Amino acid sequence: MPDDQSTPPVTTLQGPVVIIGAGLVGASVGCALTAAGITVHLEDRVPSHAIVAAGRGAGVVTAAPPDAVELVVVATPPATVPGVVDDALDRFPNATVTDVASVKAIIIESIDAEDAGRYVGSHPMAGSQFTGPLTADASLFIDRTWVITPTAQNPAEHVGRVVALAEICGARVVWLDPVEHDQAVAQVSHVPHLMSILTAGHLREVPTHHLPLAGQGIRDVTRIAGSDPALWRQILWGNRSAVRAELAGVRADLDELLQVLDEPDALEAFLARGRAGARSLPGKHGLAREDFVTVTIQIPDTPGMLAKLFTDIGQAGVNVEDLSIEHDPSRQYGYLSIDVTPEEAARLSTWMTAAGWNLA
Amino acid sequence: MPDDQSTPPVTTLQGPVVIIGAGLVGASVGCALTAAGITVHLEDRVPSHAIVAAGRGAGVVTAAPPDAVELVVVATPPATVPGVVDDALDRFPNATVTDVASVKAIIIESIDAEDAGRYVGSHPMAGSQFTGPLTADASLFIDRTWVITPTAQNPAEHVGRVVALAEICGARVVWLDPVEHDQAVAQVSHVPHLMSILTAGHLREVPTHHLPLAGQGIRDVTRIAGSDPALWRQILWGNRSAVRAELAGVRADLDELLQVLDEPDALEAFLARGRAGARSLPGKHGLAREDFVTVTIQIPDTPGMLAKLFTDIGQAGVNVEDLSIEHDPSRQYGYLSIDVTPEEAARLSTWMTAAGWNLA
Repeated sequence: MPDDQSTPPVTTLQGPVVIIGAGLVGASVGCALTAAGITVHLEDRVPSHAIVAAGRGAGVVTAAPPDAVELVVVATPPATVPGVVDDALDRFPNATVTDVASVKAIIIESIDAEDAGRYVGSHPMAGSQFTGPLTADASLFIDRTWVITPTAQNPAEHVGRVVALAEICGARVVWLDPVEHDQAVAQVSHVPHLMSILTAGHLREVPTHHLPLAGQGIRDVTRIAGSDPALWRQILWGNRSAVRAELAGVRADLDELLQVLDEPDALEAFLARGRAGARSLPGKHGLAREDFVTVTIQIPDTPGMLAKLFTDIGQAGVNVEDLSIEHDPSRQYGYLSIDVTPEEAARLSTWMTAAGWNLA
Repeated sequence: MPDDQSTPPVTTLQGPVVIIGAGLVGASVGCALTAAGITVHLEDRVPSHAIVAAGRGAGVVTAAPPDAVELVVVATPPATVPGVVDDALDRFPNATVTDVASVKAIIIESIDAEDAGRYVGSHPMAGSQFTGPLTADASLFIDRTWVITPTAQNPAEHVGRVVALAEICGARVVWLDPVEHDQAVAQVSHVPHLMSILTAGHLREVPTHHLPLAGQGIRDVTRIAGSDPALWRQILWGNRSAVRAELAGVRADLDELLQVLDEPDALEAFLARGRAGARSLPGKHGLAREDFVTVTIQIPDTPGMLAKLFTDIGQAGVNVEDLSIEHDPSRQYGYLSIDVTPEEAARLSTWMTAAGWNLA
């Protein structure tokens, strides 16, 4: 938090800004700042990435950065961030330095004490399965959560520049202490990732002829296990103490599960606890999932049906809160589940039935 | 396996057939058999369910079952199956009796020795989030896996009737020993379900203000944790010994993970093992996932875009192998990922780009 919590930080950013690392996130930040009229200087260890990002409108590439840099945004691979931040604090002795990595405490620990006031950690929640400057987009952060993790060492002017950065990108700022941030991402991202890895890794012991019995459930649980091990190694290693603490809790729960397997009532209570946890995740616009009703429509697996389906939903004129497709590869049809408000659910159901769809 | 493995069982079924339990699966079996011209008698503990199922074309409801019943299909809730199977073997002393439950060994253990030859376990892989006779559909099993679990006690004529049942329903028969079947479903269904439960249950310890940091990953992992605890209690309890054995393996893996968290190379190898496991799951038509290429298209979150998207994909004329939507609730857009053959991927990419879509 800024020193004087009664005075909100001044949130202005004129630039110039230096972005180090022109991947998806760095280049997208560059696009948003450039669109706002701020001069952005792009750097990347791979010069062609910076040039591609500049071509996407993320800023300019010049032999040397401009004078009087106001803010440096470090957007390099996770394992490199502490070193690059340190280096940026040296190279730009008057600038605020921030980064976009998903782990924060490890960076703060690595900074020289005399520079600590100028480093303000941040974490835009814009993760995606995609990487590289080609997918850069100024709208990547609109309505996304952007966590800012100031410490007592940060003067308000430095915090204010990072707030301005997030606001220019269109994100919603969430304040967290760095250590609490790392605990939160361990809980809602890193541990779920590892649970997916554990589930998928267990398949190595499963005979191949058992795999055709797999349904949609295991496919959902193991989807994120397909992510890049080289990237996740960096993320997890950087947050290993928080991850370890959470995994210890999971291990205790697993031991409890092994105990209650023989006790139907206790087992059901255990399962109900999981269902309550799944339902506690917020839906779109931050509303609780319980505030919505799911309408499920059967989709025949024939060409053009999805197009017709979405046309009909569009004509129903309801506000689709969230949607998911249950597409079982071995079936002639799948299911589309749409979350809408209770008032709209009745209207949507009537409309879709009239249009000839089977509701489930 | 049938007694004489060199002679395939005679696979004929004339009926009449009695179906006990007129939920989604029982009523759908009834619809498929009725459509094939076989007389089906429906029973349900809740008489209105049988009547609704009859209304959906699943068979007839009469005061007493017909004479000379050839096959009884037990499709009641999991915990009741052993008792209902036992009872059916008594009530229909000349009939073959099968069931559709997802756990098999526990049923065989409960049968009187003199009736063991007439009970042939089976398990159509037609699980769905939906229940009840209203969603019954004769095509529910088409191209689905239908596991049959005969024992050495089963004469070929009894096995043949169950094979005929699966074939009339349009399913692909897979043979497994009952104990191996239970191990297989523990591996690919029950343990993944519990991993989802463990992940979701851990959220109870997470402060509410951490939840906005949740992304799509944890939503995928925890989706099946939202399933009915009262149903899953029955499934898991019935297969608790196989589930326990698999969970012990997961626990050992978790301990290994806790050890490698501090060793980046070993951690990456652990993550790569998970990715390999996720990729080992077969895709549509049983082909390996590696045989396909994923084309990912950005979907702006504006009305009508999904309809336009699917229309354009339809016009591209490619064979969509599998699809998934990454729909982040807090973003202005989502992503549609489509698996196609490598040859079609290039054509689809060119077509969609020309139609104005952003590929990622």
